[in-house]
Amino acid sequence: MKPEHPAPIEWHFSQRAQQLQSSVIREILKVTMRPEIISFAGGLPSPETFPVERMRIAHDAVLSRQGKTALQYGTSDGYAPLREWIADSLSLEGSRIMPEQVLMLSGSQQGLDLLGKVLIDEGSKVLVETPSYLGALQAFSVYRPEFVSIPTDEGGLIPEAVPEIAQGARLLYALPNFQNPTGRTLSVERRSALVHTCASLGLPLIEDDPYGALSYRGNPLPKMLNMNPGGVIYMGSFSKVLTPGIRLGYVVAPTTLIRKLEQAKQAADLHTAQLTQMVVYEVIKDGFLDSHIPTIRSLYAEQCQVMLEALEEFFPQEASWTRPEGGMFIWVTLPSHIDSLTLLDEAIAQNVAFVPGAPFYANTPALNTLRLSFVTVPPEKIREGIARLGKLIAAKL
Amino acid sequence: MKPEHPAPIEWHFSQRAQQLQSSVIREILKVTMRPEIISFAGGLPSPETFPVERMRIAHDAVLSRQGKTALQYGTSDGYAPLREWIADSLSLEGSRIMPEQVLMLSGSQQGLDLLGKVLIDEGSKVLVETPSYLGALQAFSVYRPEFVSIPTDEGGLIPEAVPEIAQGARLLYALPNFQNPTGRTLSVERRSALVHTCASLGLPLIEDDPYGALSYRGNPLPKMLNMNPGGVIYMGSFSKVLTPGIRLGYVVAPTTLIRKLEQAKQAADLHTAQLTQMVVYEVIKDGFLDSHIPTIRSLYAEQCQVMLEALEEFFPQEASWTRPEGGMFIWVTLPSHIDSLTLLDEAIAQNVAFVPGAPFYANTPALNTLRLSFVTVPPEKIREGIARLGKLIAAKL
Repeated sequence: MKPEHPAPIEWHFSQRAQQLQSSVIREILKVTMRPEIISFAGGLPSPETFPVERMRIAHDAVLSRQGKTALQYGTSDGYAPLREWIADSLSLEGSRIMPEQVLMLSGSQQGLDLLGKVLIDEGSKVLVETPSYLGALQAFSVYRPEFVSIPTDEGGLIPEAVPEIAQGARLLYALPNFQNPTGRTLSVERRSALVHTCASLGLPLIEDDPYGALSYRGNPLPKMLNMNPGGVIYMGSFSKVLTPGIRLGYVVAPTTLIRKLEQAKQAADLHTAQLTQMVVYEVIKDGFLDSHIPTIRSLYAEQCQVMLEALEEFFPQEASWTRPEGGMFIWVTLPSHIDSLTLLDEAIAQNVAFVPGAPFYANTPALNTLRLSFVTVPPEKIREGIARLGKLIAAKL
Repeated sequence: MKPEHPAPIEWHFSQRAQQLQSSVIREILKVTMRPEIISFAGGLPSPETFPVERMRIAHDAVLSRQGKTALQYGTSDGYAPLREWIADSLSLEGSRIMPEQVLMLSGSQQGLDLLGKVLIDEGSKVLVETPSYLGALQAFSVYRPEFVSIPTDEGGLIPEAVPEIAQGARLLYALPNFQNPTGRTLSVERRSALVHTCASLGLPLIEDDPYGALSYRGNPLPKMLNMNPGGVIYMGSFSKVLTPGIRLGYVVAPTTLIRKLEQAKQAADLHTAQLTQMVVYEVIKDGFLDSHIPTIRSLYAEQCQVMLEALEEFFPQEASWTRPEGGMFIWVTLPSHIDSLTLLDEAIAQNVAFVPGAPFYANTPALNTLRLSFVTVPPEKIREGIARLGKLIAAKL
C-alpha cells in the first residue's frame, strides 16, 4: 500500500494543557550538562551513593525465584510485602499505620498528580509554602487551582498565618524536612501547630518527605503523619535513600482517600512495576537502609559543610543563605537589586550554574534568590564554583 | 513526644474524582482468583510467554555495565536508543517516523491519561467504538468528556458514520487490531476511510495497538499511523509482546503534540524508569522479538482455535461470537433476553468466570454480551469451561 498523507491537523489543546510548561530546571540542566560546567543546578542525588551491586543481585534473585510473578500485571495498590514494610516503618506507638493506608506510586511525583486530580477543582484554593517545590506547583497547576502563598520566615511556614488564608482551601502542601528549594526544616512546635490548625479547619495537610531520612545528625524530627494519621497525607520516596531511576514512591493516607487515589492510579497507569517493587523489597527487607542511609548522610553533610565554608569565604556579606541540617539544597538571598536570572547568564559564561529562585514561587517571586545543590560536585569544585559566583555577585554591589 | 490525634477530616473530592470507579474487571478478577475457577475473565497475557531468563540476563548486563546511569534520573521523553528503535520499527518507505515523535510511557495506559489531560475539556465530545476498551473509557472519563458511540457492525466501527456525529469532537479513539473487547479487526479499506475522514474533519485519531503484533497468521494490516503521520496518534506497548509487569509503552505523534504530552508526563511522574527502558532495549536490540513474537502467536492461535471449536460444540445456535484473527479475546452475543451479569453469578457458582459486556459501552450497553479470554487457560479447561457455560445458556432459552 502506498501511504498518502493528508494535511497535518491543528491541535486544539485543553485549557488545562495550557498551564503546562517544561520545567525551568530541566531546561537549565540541558545547558549545564557540558563537562566543563560546575553545576549546582541539579536536584539529582549523588550516583556514588547508589547500591548498584546490591540492586543487581536483587534483580537476579527475584527474576530467578519469582520471574513470572514479577513480570506479570500486578495490583493497583502495590506489592503487599512492601506496603507492609512501609506501614511498619512509619508506625509509632499510639499511631499505627496499616498496609491498606499505603498506595505504591511510580515515583512520589505521581502522588502529587493523583492528589491534584482527586482533590482540586478549577479555582480551588491550594496553600503552598513560599517558596515551594517546583514539581508540586507543576503537578497541581494542571488542575487549575488558585495558589495561595503561606507566609514564611527563616523557620519555614508560619502556622499562625494559615487560618486567615484558608477559607475554602482544599489542601495545604508542605515539605517539612530540608525543604526543596530552601533546605529549611520546620520545628516540632510548628509541626504540631500546623497539624492542629489544619485539623481544626478540616484542611487536608500533605507532608511531602523525600529528604526526611537525610538528616545529617541522624535525628529526624517527628512526622506530622504520626501527629494526626486521620488528616495528614504523607508522601515518601526511594529516590533519595536508594536510587531515583527506578521510579518508586508511596503515599500514606486514610483509607477513604487511598481508595480514591487507587482508582485514579488505575486509570493513570494501572499499577507500578511489579519487578521494581519486589526488587526494592528484596533489597531493604533485612535492614539494609539502616546501614546505607548513614553513608549518604555523611557524604552530603560533608559536601554541605564545604559549600557553607566556601560561601562564608567567598560571598559578600550582603548575601545570606540557609544552613541546612539535612538534604541537598542551600538557598541564597542576594541584595534585592540583583536578579538571579541575569546572574545565571554571567555565571554560565564563567562555567558555573545554579537555579534562579523565581520558579519556586507560586505567586510573586523574590528575584534575588537562588538554589544551590552540593551533592554531586566534588569539594574542590564546590570551592572553585562558589568563588567564581562570589566574584560575580561582588561586582554588582 | 506523645502523639495526639484530632478528629479525622471529611474528604471533599473533586468533581472529576466522582467519575472514578474501580474497574469492574479488576473486581471480578479478585473473585475469580480461586484456583478451582476456570477464568475466561482475565486480560492478562500468558506468563508462559515471558522471556524470564533473557530479562534476567539483560538486567545483569545493564546493571553491570551502566548501573549508575540506569539508576539515576532520566529525561522525560525517554531513553534515546529505545526511542530510535521504536521509530525505526514503525517507519515505512514514504512515512518515516522520527525518534522525537516518540514519547516513552509507564505503560500505554499512561498515554490515555496524558492524552485525556491535554486534549479533553469538560464536555468535549470524544468518539469511541461500540463497545470500546474499558481502560480508555476510565482514563478519559476523569476529564469529563461527552462520550459519543460510533456505530459498529461485524467489521468494527463504520467510518461513514463518523462525520454526522463528529461536530465539535476533540478526538476519535480506535483499537483497529483484534480489539479489546470484541477481537474484531478493522479492514484496510475502513482504516483508509477512517484516516481520511478524520483528516478532513481535523479530528485527532488515536490508534491504540497493544495487540497488533499478535496476528495469528503473522500478516498484520497496515497501520493508520503510516497512512497519516500528521494526524494519527499511535500507542504501542511491550506488555503483550514481552511482559506487562515492567510497565513500558509509548506514544507516537506529531512533535507539537508530543512536546505537550512530554510536559504533562513530567508533571505526572517525571519520567519512565531508566533501568526498565535500558533493559528492554538490551533485550530487543538484536531482533529478539522477530523470533519471540511468533511463539506467542502460535500459542494464542491454538488456544483461540480450541475455544472456537468448543463454542461451536457446546453453545446453543442462538448465540453468536466473533472469530478473531489475532489477540486475546472472543466476544459473545447471547439472545437479547439474557443478561450476562445474571449469567455471571450462575457461572461463578459453577466455577467458571467471564467479563459481562456492559462496562465496555460508553453509553447504552448491550446487556446480552460478554468477553472471553482464552490465553491463560489450558485447552482441556477451555473445553470444560465452555461446556458449563453452554449448559447455563441453554437452560435460559
